[in-house]
Amino acid sequence: MDAEAGTPLLDQAHGHGTPWNLRGTFGASLAGLTALLLGLLAGFGRFAPDIDDTHVGQYYSYLTDVYVMIFLGFGFLMTFLKRYSYSAVSLNYVTSCLVILEAVLACGWAQQGWGAVAVDLPLLIDAAFAAGAAMISFGAVLGKATPAQLVWLLALEVPLYAANAQLVAGRWGALDVGGSITIHAFGAVYGVAAAAFLAPRGSGSAHPKSGASYVSDMTAMLGTIFLFIYWPSFNGALASAPGEKAQPQVYCIMNTVVALLGAVLAAFAASAAATGKLDMVHIQNATLAGGVAIGSSANLAMPPACALAVGITAGALSTAGYLVLSPFLEGKCGITDTCGVANLHGAPGIWGGLASALFSWLFAAGANKKLIVHGASQPAVQLAALGCTLAAAAAGGALAGFLVSKADPAKQSLEEGDLYEDAVFWHEVEGEEHKEE
Amino acid sequence: MDAEAGTPLLDQAHGHGTPWNLRGTFGASLAGLTALLLGLLAGFGRFAPDIDDTHVGQYYSYLTDVYVMIFLGFGFLMTFLKRYSYSAVSLNYVTSCLVILEAVLACGWAQQGWGAVAVDLPLLIDAAFAAGAAMISFGAVLGKATPAQLVWLLALEVPLYAANAQLVAGRWGALDVGGSITIHAFGAVYGVAAAAFLAPRGSGSAHPKSGASYVSDMTAMLGTIFLFIYWPSFNGALASAPGEKAQPQVYCIMNTVVALLGAVLAAFAASAAATGKLDMVHIQNATLAGGVAIGSSANLAMPPACALAVGITAGALSTAGYLVLSPFLEGKCGITDTCGVANLHGAPGIWGGLASALFSWLFAAGANKKLIVHGASQPAVQLAALGCTLAAAAAGGALAGFLVSKADPAKQSLEEGDLYEDAVFWHEVEGEEHKEE
Amino acid sequence: MDAEAGTPLLDQAHGHGTPWNLRGTFGASLAGLTALLLGLLAGFGRFAPDIDDTHVGQYYSYLTDVYVMIFLGFGFLMTFLKRYSYSAVSLNYVTSCLVILEAVLACGWAQQGWGAVAVDLPLLIDAAFAAGAAMISFGAVLGKATPAQLVWLLALEVPLYAANAQLVAGRWGALDVGGSITIHAFGAVYGVAAAAFLAPRGSGSAHPKSGASYVSDMTAMLGTIFLFIYWPSFNGALASAPGEKAQPQVYCIMNTVVALLGAVLAAFAASAAATGKLDMVHIQNATLAGGVAIGSSANLAMPPACALAVGITAGALSTAGYLVLSPFLEGKCGITDTCGVANLHGAPGIWGGLASALFSWLFAAGANKKLIVHGASQPAVQLAALGCTLAAAAAGGALAGFLVSKADPAKQSLEEGDLYEDAVFWHEVEGEEHKEE
Repeated sequence: MDAEAGTPLLDQAHGHGTPWNLRGTFGASLAGLTALLLGLLAGFGRFAPDIDDTHVGQYYSYLTDVYVMIFLGFGFLMTFLKRYSYSAVSLNYVTSCLVILEAVLACGWAQQGWGAVAVDLPLLIDAAFAAGAAMISFGAVLGKATPAQLVWLLALEVPLYAANAQLVAGRWGALDVGGSITIHAFGAVYGVAAAAFLAPRGSGSAHPKSGASYVSDMTAMLGTIFLFIYWPSFNGALASAPGEKAQPQVYCIMNTVVALLGAVLAAFAASAAATGKLDMVHIQNATLAGGVAIGSSANLAMPPACALAVGITAGALSTAGYLVLSPFLEGKCGITDTCGVANLHGAPGIWGGLASALFSWLFAAGANKKLIVHGASQPAVQLAALGCTLAAAAAGGALAGFLVSKADPAKQSLEEGDLYEDAVFWHEVEGEEHKEE
Repeated sequence: MDAEAGTPLLDQAHGHGTPWNLRGTFGASLAGLTALLLGLLAGFGRFAPDIDDTHVGQYYSYLTDVYVMIFLGFGFLMTFLKRYSYSAVSLNYVTSCLVILEAVLACGWAQQGWGAVAVDLPLLIDAAFAAGAAMISFGAVLGKATPAQLVWLLALEVPLYAANAQLVAGRWGALDVGGSITIHAFGAVYGVAAAAFLAPRGSGSAHPKSGASYVSDMTAMLGTIFLFIYWPSFNGALASAPGEKAQPQVYCIMNTVVALLGAVLAAFAASAAATGKLDMVHIQNATLAGGVAIGSSANLAMPPACALAVGITAGALSTAGYLVLSPFLEGKCGITDTCGVANLHGAPGIWGGLASALFSWLFAAGANKKLIVHGASQPAVQLAALGCTLAAAAAGGALAGFLVSKADPAKQSLEEGDLYEDAVFWHEVEGEEHKEE
Repeated sequence: MDAEAGTPLLDQAHGHGTPWNLRGTFGASLAGLTALLLGLLAGFGRFAPDIDDTHVGQYYSYLTDVYVMIFLGFGFLMTFLKRYSYSAVSLNYVTSCLVILEAVLACGWAQQGWGAVAVDLPLLIDAAFAAGAAMISFGAVLGKATPAQLVWLLALEVPLYAANAQLVAGRWGALDVGGSITIHAFGAVYGVAAAAFLAPRGSGSAHPKSGASYVSDMTAMLGTIFLFIYWPSFNGALASAPGEKAQPQVYCIMNTVVALLGAVLAAFAASAAATGKLDMVHIQNATLAGGVAIGSSANLAMPPACALAVGITAGALSTAGYLVLSPFLEGKCGITDTCGVANLHGAPGIWGGLASALFSWLFAAGANKKLIVHGASQPAVQLAALGCTLAAAAAGGALAGFLVSKADPAKQSLEEGDLYEDAVFWHEVEGEEHKEE
């Protein structure tokens, strides 16, 4: 079935009259943006002058851990499509680099004000968080946006991400150390909103290349396990504040570990209970929902059973999302969310924001007092941060998706046979020909 | 040959009358155990109150390193079977999470006594060590135990593991910082004893699906390399004791690095010398025997050539195990040890226990004095610890294997065609159909 | 096409009269060298006596990061050949271990003088750097040297590497913290010079097995991403000097991150601009040239835009190398550089050496004064170090390549069908048979 369906689609791709050429679109976009960022960095960027090597000990291992999540975790998780693995890992690679470089300036300006930007390791970690949000958005349009569309969609996301994160967490003081709200919910909603405008004909889940192969499911699983292992670093990277007892960072780490355990157990149980067997889509994705959902409240001192409960509910919720929400989005709204980021990052991110409102009310006393800066109003601040983030992401994602869907200088568009297909963008995609014959 | 043999077996699997359904077995077991652990954690678990962020700097990177070994190392090493890669990595993932959560309580109670359990990073590392023992046991029954049998087999292992480790290392004071005895020998013997009772008809190494494919051998090799790189962290994770000169941790790391180098060189040389070519089974497994064997004596100050010699002998011994011990176990005892854990963890673990007796006698003076608490009696303590561990693991593994082989509430059992086969437990196992036709 | 071309070549391999046997060549070489190194370590090696666990905190995570680069990064990057993945990752594994053990002694003697060698973590990191140089050289002869030839080629490289690095960086005081000169340029030139003598008939890029499969390109991409993530650790591992403000290590890390971002963006843009599509060879390799090129000057305090510019030029230069230099080397010089190490390590390494001369002149004042020990003469020292390194590597590589190409005690040589082919050296290379039929 795969073979019969694949061949005519691929032929169609190669024979639709305008052979694909990335030179004037993706190549020129990337070269232009790189030159622009080089100019801006030359004008505004300097390494922070007062840092020393204790700074390295405090932050560097978190930077590499977060890079593992961005480049290996998200990058390989998105290789699950049987004919789009090259593009998934490579476009994740290059657009993450672009977003990080752009976010050094955008987050720098948002946090430090206009003018010179002092670059240090925490700013590099913040820039990697921006790439996290962007790669979540990428997941919603995987295989459907052209490389050039993707570059612009994510380049447009960065300033909005930086402004929203600075507003709700920096200025309003919402709890969101691990980014349930500002990274996960933001990135998912931005991506899904954009996907509404990037839905070429035939791009639905019935497309013969929108599934996985045995090998591509294994490379995706590699991404899943990397995300699982290093998620505590993601949630705790910027929580350190040496010299005081009972610091947030250790709670970030332990709460995240416990929440992840709960989500893994719940997602496996839910997948087996709901379907009678196991489904790779659930295992690759829903098992990670605990890390998403605990993000906003990870630095609170609370009983470990609370973190476990957050993880269990998130894992079950995310599995249910793949079973119910995805078909609904596609059937009723015409939105194909390729990786199901609405289920892995959207719903658990929102649940994480709600949980942080609950916990900031339940555990407002004691060790958490210095974190819960608004006292009894903190839950309201959490909800406001969530609402602002969802609105900004939805509006921004829809606008950006609309713009990149219309801007098509090279008059190249993806036909049905080009979707989810590496051969359109890559030289010599070999080794799988036997599948097509 | 693969194709001809594979198809009727697979057809048999799908057509044996009772279609597989994980809902009432694996799903219910997992949901029930998760609910139980949530209740116990709510009742007894609390985060240790007196920890601060120096605690993070001291332990956290070891926790992630050990997680890499458990989830990526063991998880991908076990993907070598050509048709069982999904199950290997995924069942490794979920049962490790289950064991870690259970071991937080079990190891906590064993170390802190009954009552409230103070959870901190060293306890999480100890819980990950328990998962190490459990994943070794998993290797012996890989592809033969059903998911539900596996869950119960490993859930039953945890209390025995915690009790034995606390007895021989905690109470008796045996040297075993890296767990040659309490983790590797224990896990291997428990698994092999259980495998004696989990040997469905036709599950021997002649089964057409008990081998590897080109790709599955590569994903397994990824696991091997991860284990190689992070093994020094495994052996040194809990050896730190800041503030004193010539501490154990730095010796743990350097002795383990050197022993690993020796085992890699010896295993390659032995594989080529014994067979004339290289064998992936030896390279994936026996190269790691140095990390196993140096575990009990890794924190001793001794000449690096001693660590190298331990590694060389362990690598050669483990290769010989695959050539001699595995065929013997299968031919004479009817025990198929799928991953050969008897060779990678069993024999080198026992050799590591014996080596620790030798070294605690040879290097009892100087910097090692404070570690060798029993002085001249330390070798006897090492041997007693080894004997107690082997006996406990053999009895416990046999009992647990017997129990899970008999308990079959859903009346589902694995036919010959279901063995080593993902399609029995997973939806949409695609991408490899061309192999079957 | 693959199928038709592959079968007769493979048949030729299996039918050329002398069946391959690694016992007397590779096995004996490895066993003999291991025994020799065990004897030398017993005679001369001891762990440094005055180290404590702060030493672990300062160096250990860098050791594991560099091991990730050597064993996973280089190891998997070289698995891109469709039929040589086993050999690539495994020979990388065993020869890296051999080189590390040998380099502990060779670098130890070079740095500490003849006699007892005090082994500590920085020496183990230096030994891993030697393996880096050796694995670069391996890349040039991948698939063409026999395992025994490879063992001797790399074993001969280590003393020369240690002597050259000690001379130009240790004695002359050239800046080369990340090894653009002494590791990358050295390893590439040594390997390419050796490849001139290890070019069996038919080993050119037209060989039907010298290309990639869909899966092997994905495992190679895994290596690329690991190298990308941990490159800052490589450049910064030995740069720490606690207790002073504005230390080199933090600059090493930040300069390397920024240079890597630039090279990724430039390599993608250059690949698309030059060819109209993306080419996996460029993405897997040229994207990493920023880490190579910034190596010599990574510890200098300079504007981040300078590091970005170094990365951008290196990424473009390396892509151009694959498009121009590789065909030139093969067409005009008859040298097939299997992995294109001349483009990834050679040219960017030389460019890094030249850039360090430029930057040591431009940024000689301020924080860099204590590093630029020769003041205004530092650029000349950089150029002298580069020249000496290139000459030593070219002469040494050519001599070693000539020697190992002539020494053939077992009278076994690689026929055209044996090239780039695992089945010659491995038992039971399964799972790809469908490609050959």
